[in-house]
Amino acid sequence: MLMRDARMRYASVRKLTEDLAKPLSDADATIQSMPDASPAKWHLAHMSWFFETFILRDHVPGYQPYRADWPFLFNSYYETEGPRLGRAARGMLSRPSLADILDYRSAVDAAMDRAIEQLSPEALALVELGCQHEQQHQELLLTDILHAFSLNPLECAVWPRQGSPCPGDPAPVIWLDGPQGMIEIGARATGSGTFAFDCEGPRHTALLHPHQLADRKVTNAEWLAFMADGGYEEPRLWLSDGWAWRQTQGVRAPFYWMDGAHGWTSFTLSGRHPIDPAAPVCHVSFYEADAFATWAAARLPTEAEWEVAAAQHDPSGGNLLDGPGDIRPRPVHDSPRFFGDAWEWTGSAYRPYPGFSAADGAIGEYNGKFMSGQYVLRGGSCATPRGHMRASYRNFFYPHHRWQFMGLRLARDGA
Amino acid sequence: MLMRDARMRYASVRKLTEDLAKPLSDADATIQSMPDASPAKWHLAHMSWFFETFILRDHVPGYQPYRADWPFLFNSYYETEGPRLGRAARGMLSRPSLADILDYRSAVDAAMDRAIEQLSPEALALVELGCQHEQQHQELLLTDILHAFSLNPLECAVWPRQGSPCPGDPAPVIWLDGPQGMIEIGARATGSGTFAFDCEGPRHTALLHPHQLADRKVTNAEWLAFMADGGYEEPRLWLSDGWAWRQTQGVRAPFYWMDGAHGWTSFTLSGRHPIDPAAPVCHVSFYEADAFATWAAARLPTEAEWEVAAAQHDPSGGNLLDGPGDIRPRPVHDSPRFFGDAWEWTGSAYRPYPGFSAADGAIGEYNGKFMSGQYVLRGGSCATPRGHMRASYRNFFYPHHRWQFMGLRLARDGA
Amino acid sequence: MLMRDARMRYASVRKLTEDLAKPLSDADATIQSMPDASPAKWHLAHMSWFFETFILRDHVPGYQPYRADWPFLFNSYYETEGPRLGRAARGMLSRPSLADILDYRSAVDAAMDRAIEQLSPEALALVELGCQHEQQHQELLLTDILHAFSLNPLECAVWPRQGSPCPGDPAPVIWLDGPQGMIEIGARATGSGTFAFDCEGPRHTALLHPHQLADRKVTNAEWLAFMADGGYEEPRLWLSDGWAWRQTQGVRAPFYWMDGAHGWTSFTLSGRHPIDPAAPVCHVSFYEADAFATWAAARLPTEAEWEVAAAQHDPSGGNLLDGPGDIRPRPVHDSPRFFGDAWEWTGSAYRPYPGFSAADGAIGEYNGKFMSGQYVLRGGSCATPRGHMRASYRNFFYPHHRWQFMGLRLARDGA
Amino acid sequence: MLMRDARMRYASVRKLTEDLAKPLSDADATIQSMPDASPAKWHLAHMSWFFETFILRDHVPGYQPYRADWPFLFNSYYETEGPRLGRAARGMLSRPSLADILDYRSAVDAAMDRAIEQLSPEALALVELGCQHEQQHQELLLTDILHAFSLNPLECAVWPRQGSPCPGDPAPVIWLDGPQGMIEIGARATGSGTFAFDCEGPRHTALLHPHQLADRKVTNAEWLAFMADGGYEEPRLWLSDGWAWRQTQGVRAPFYWMDGAHGWTSFTLSGRHPIDPAAPVCHVSFYEADAFATWAAARLPTEAEWEVAAAQHDPSGGNLLDGPGDIRPRPVHDSPRFFGDAWEWTGSAYRPYPGFSAADGAIGEYNGKFMSGQYVLRGGSCATPRGHMRASYRNFFYPHHRWQFMGLRLARDGA
Repeated sequence: MLMRDARMRYASVRKLTEDLAKPLSDADATIQSMPDASPAKWHLAHMSWFFETFILRDHVPGYQPYRADWPFLFNSYYETEGPRLGRAARGMLSRPSLADILDYRSAVDAAMDRAIEQLSPEALALVELGCQHEQQHQELLLTDILHAFSLNPLECAVWPRQGSPCPGDPAPVIWLDGPQGMIEIGARATGSGTFAFDCEGPRHTALLHPHQLADRKVTNAEWLAFMADGGYEEPRLWLSDGWAWRQTQGVRAPFYWMDGAHGWTSFTLSGRHPIDPAAPVCHVSFYEADAFATWAAARLPTEAEWEVAAAQHDPSGGNLLDGPGDIRPRPVHDSPRFFGDAWEWTGSAYRPYPGFSAADGAIGEYNGKFMSGQYVLRGGSCATPRGHMRASYRNFFYPHHRWQFMGLRLARDGA
Repeated sequence: MLMRDARMRYASVRKLTEDLAKPLSDADATIQSMPDASPAKWHLAHMSWFFETFILRDHVPGYQPYRADWPFLFNSYYETEGPRLGRAARGMLSRPSLADILDYRSAVDAAMDRAIEQLSPEALALVELGCQHEQQHQELLLTDILHAFSLNPLECAVWPRQGSPCPGDPAPVIWLDGPQGMIEIGARATGSGTFAFDCEGPRHTALLHPHQLADRKVTNAEWLAFMADGGYEEPRLWLSDGWAWRQTQGVRAPFYWMDGAHGWTSFTLSGRHPIDPAAPVCHVSFYEADAFATWAAARLPTEAEWEVAAAQHDPSGGNLLDGPGDIRPRPVHDSPRFFGDAWEWTGSAYRPYPGFSAADGAIGEYNGKFMSGQYVLRGGSCATPRGHMRASYRNFFYPHHRWQFMGLRLARDGA
Repeated sequence: MLMRDARMRYASVRKLTEDLAKPLSDADATIQSMPDASPAKWHLAHMSWFFETFILRDHVPGYQPYRADWPFLFNSYYETEGPRLGRAARGMLSRPSLADILDYRSAVDAAMDRAIEQLSPEALALVELGCQHEQQHQELLLTDILHAFSLNPLECAVWPRQGSPCPGDPAPVIWLDGPQGMIEIGARATGSGTFAFDCEGPRHTALLHPHQLADRKVTNAEWLAFMADGGYEEPRLWLSDGWAWRQTQGVRAPFYWMDGAHGWTSFTLSGRHPIDPAAPVCHVSFYEADAFATWAAARLPTEAEWEVAAAQHDPSGGNLLDGPGDIRPRPVHDSPRFFGDAWEWTGSAYRPYPGFSAADGAIGEYNGKFMSGQYVLRGGSCATPRGHMRASYRNFFYPHHRWQFMGLRLARDGA
Repeated sequence: MLMRDARMRYASVRKLTEDLAKPLSDADATIQSMPDASPAKWHLAHMSWFFETFILRDHVPGYQPYRADWPFLFNSYYETEGPRLGRAARGMLSRPSLADILDYRSAVDAAMDRAIEQLSPEALALVELGCQHEQQHQELLLTDILHAFSLNPLECAVWPRQGSPCPGDPAPVIWLDGPQGMIEIGARATGSGTFAFDCEGPRHTALLHPHQLADRKVTNAEWLAFMADGGYEEPRLWLSDGWAWRQTQGVRAPFYWMDGAHGWTSFTLSGRHPIDPAAPVCHVSFYEADAFATWAAARLPTEAEWEVAAAQHDPSGGNLLDGPGDIRPRPVHDSPRFFGDAWEWTGSAYRPYPGFSAADGAIGEYNGKFMSGQYVLRGGSCATPRGHMRASYRNFFYPHHRWQFMGLRLARDGA
């Protein structure tokens, strides 16, 4: 990446974060709704901490830390970087204030602006990593705020509702034959021009068995049919862990859904609204997605099947997150797109690709150590910043997680 | 109470609350550090809710509720008043904002100001109840903020430290003979001129056995001696429940204490400071207080013993909470005072007095339903508003609680 | 106590234990149904451990321990006696077998038989303490086996059902005026001829306020009326802790009760049987008892009120546990008796009497350290061995406990 | 399978179970040490329940159930078979007794003996499934008893120790090149002559990348070196979930290990013994195995890599479970064997093979519904009955499990 591109890239990514934070009060940005989520303020500070630590501190001679005691607060999980605030205690940081954190951002931005011309190629690569990292936290900031606001009985909207419901019924699924045999997937090595996280590579040969993919995601209308058919009450449709989760949690609909006199509604970043039948279903767990697929006599795609199909499409055409002035994270399409709207659960456990090895040092803690117990999701969502998505992208969450914008697409064996 | 007195009384109590809230940001006022504690903002709103509900709504014809959906948020535990927000969810109320809550206070104050002249004696009694209620929450607001700030690694101060450490060593305890035989305790019936909560009465005869009371509270220096003598490691000193609590919680010093290179320090509303040997020990549980007393070959006083002795003293002479411009909640005295500095654990379980019956309706839920599992504390603390204390006052907490300003005085059998 | 009496007393108490254990298999005697309960085998061994430790080991020169590693297993809670098996792990002792434990009992009995003639008066007092201790565990053995068997879907009976249901309706309650003013309660000092546990004394003056006691316990018929009137659904009847307990546990009837096509039944030591309307209600918690009393516009008696009234009655006339050949622990009477059938919850927290101090050494851990968080029960039950009961006897359990034979009698203020 | 073979097969499998149960008392066979484990008695009854339900009830006209209420007790997890006893309550079944359960076994055996000649091929296939099922429970019976006995401070042995420690040092690992490219794995369809569980198929093409496998398992000596090098204290070696597990559980050595004055010992089915340096390490979790592999600059094999290598070996040559008279489940070999001693953790999540679909009905609940959250283990252990093992066999456990005989073999990338 050229200096000039890096500078523009950095500025543009950082700008979006501030736009996302704009509707939030100091209090909004402080609360933590569950251990899995972080306060918006913490996301904001952590993003800057990443640049300050891995670029300014490590690559800019003479850089003076902004505050000596803040790294303890804003390190997320990098054991190599020393002790840190317990994750569940992030919600106690009423101070520093949101304004203090924005000052911190400005100071880091100013220092980055001064430094960026002198950075080595290695450090420039870290700038891009920092931008990608910030984009990930942009999405988390949105999903965490959604979760926090959902617990406030006042059901406030962060942004006003824009657009209208999806028109008409979803078209019936068309089953697309996938390729079979040996085929390459995964990201090429860094340096090849496009950024990728370490876990997306190495590029390697995978073996595809005969299969078909649905041409679109599962819709809310289809999910309502699953519910009407007793899908949440029939243990034979569920994985054993999934059934136990469904029982102990009393799950009977997607997350944020509520049953009322006028039918099902869902809480969104624009407040509570009726379910849109034609839109993709969202906020379902892997367990629910798997049970739905079983009910539909289908299965979830493997991540290789998904990636090979998605590689034929342009990520930039998806319903992804734009801004400013156009922030409306909401799944709306049921059209044959592979990117945006809602992440798609795959049936693949999140494990290392053949030949994977984590980077050295703190950066090496980025992905590899999370490779157990989670499943891969693909394609990005309406909360994923445009420009952040690619076919090889591997997102991962635990099978009970639902607070991200998560949906599914069906696959089946044979051709 | 005369109208005029009621108006002044109301204004002065409400004013102190606002002074207490002044150093808090919107975020400070929003966070909830544990289920036992409430956000400052919630306390502020709940105090107004009390007046709005039990006076404006119930006694002022034509009063229009400030917000239809707020009572659900700010009812504390009155089952009679209908469903309410779960206690542990109070920390999710980033909205309404602190400014919104202060507007609510102003609106209630204005309505009260208009209404107070027309109130019936019965309603005027509720005004006084509301003022007493607000004073209780003033203390809780302080102890809850202390707890919340203690969880922030930055260890911020709410108010600057004022005053200097207590000089010199505490004088040795003098044992005072208490009276014995039948003696009256408890508050006289309401209407007798002085306010009292229902649980403080009825006034009744109690029987005192021969006993002595220490002339002052236990000090930090004495507590350090208990620690140095292995008091926290010797199970025979402890109640069985207390020992289990000490073991599972890993308790080895009073709450907020920390061991460091320069000795023990304590986190306070003015940040972290060295332990003051001559000051009364504070932030100890009933279990710790009981173990200390056993170690000292003494026991905790009964509430009757305490009340009879305290009735000889003037509550207004204690180290209680003043303001504005003089807010410094900090235990400092080791002198023979019965009021202020730190609540004193008694050995009496919080149970109804002979002949007690709770009032009808929601107000009846004020005290009686908490009469199990808790112990009585007496005398008020440095965080109790001056004017709120009296000899018959019964405070109550669970035996493991430590976040209030809680200490102890010793007693022993015989005369 | 004379030697000869001690020998007979010892033999007779030990004999009953063996009778109680007779219907139990090795497996029955091994399982532990909850941390509060102990396996029957453990009770059997612990009773012998008590005699072996505090008499044979401490008072018989040259006594050789039966097994060096068994005291670790069978010490209950005596911190002074060193480390011990965690309470919740008692159910893992498939070995030693029941037969091994009975051999241990025989060996201890033989050693006691040899030793008893030579014991000092002090040691003889410990023999009586050991017998009282064993009688307590006889009752616990029964209540623990009842609990364990209740969790086996086969609902086996330990003893066959004997006797028939109580005839007719319970007579209406007669309210008896209690005495008022200063009156003595509590056990006289040991050595006065009758045994008492340390917590029953010292004998002291108590002050009674005007009150009345019901002449009999609350019956199942009355409890069913409370249930029919929505007693379990009305929070205003309940203590706050009690309501929380009722909600989280989903309580809607006494323990062991089950609703069926033919009405309510209860699981007993003789299997499952229909509720007997005229019998005293049993297996209710303090919280339930208190809510019932509130519903009935009454209250629970204080322990002093109870003791003064009970002192007029003969404990031996109660429905207590007999044996052998006559083991049928079942509450049946609704007549004006103060002893037997079901322990009566009082409204008194279990706290030390004025002047109480625990004995030195391990024996001193017997009662005093449990004096927090529990309530006093009085009068014994159908599972309390005849000869073990007296008016001053203070039993104590936590307010949520229900697995003992626990019921209630009402009291009210005034005369 | 011919009738005659089926009869002999059935008899021989059932015989081994009885041999395994022989040293157990009624009490030994009753206790349940954790929810993951079952009482031996329950295993014994459940094995018979399987034959009674799926063969006698479903395929033998006129068969009368042995006891109407036992299926509720002894169904494991077959939702299709109706409600059942909660897993954690299995330890409350002091009745039926071990003798009752053995009578049940005899009755089922007699009925099977009468029926087996008339069974359809389909039913005969279920006989084999029942035998395989019983063999699985034979291993679980051993591992569950080991766990239960480990919690008894007496540390009893089930069988006397046989044999001597492994001689000498383990030979250094030899790295064997594995094949690469497309290769077939998985079991052929049933009917092909050899039994396999449904999850072992369908046989399909897998793609192997260049890799090497160690010629033997990791030994205790190597594990001690990992420990000495701080392996349990260095978070960078661990998966994130693994490190959290290690921290909350305080893990610092394999399960059943204890540190003492004379070094490390391990509790076994023959009591506590010193660690044998040359034997394969056993009772380690997936998390520990993965951390060890990272420390050794290697990784765990995939299940395809393992199966291809193991297919070259004869399962019957492994250190598997024999009997009677030769029951000594103990890992001893460090030689280049793929079968027996200790199951080997693979790096493969337990997920369906391409084209997998579960069978219909209750039998279909056998494997498929467990395909989330678990990892595949291969090769069998010293507690796996000889004759039960094959290269395609997929065992599966959660990554924190340690109470099975679980070890590991290393793999690495490249050739």
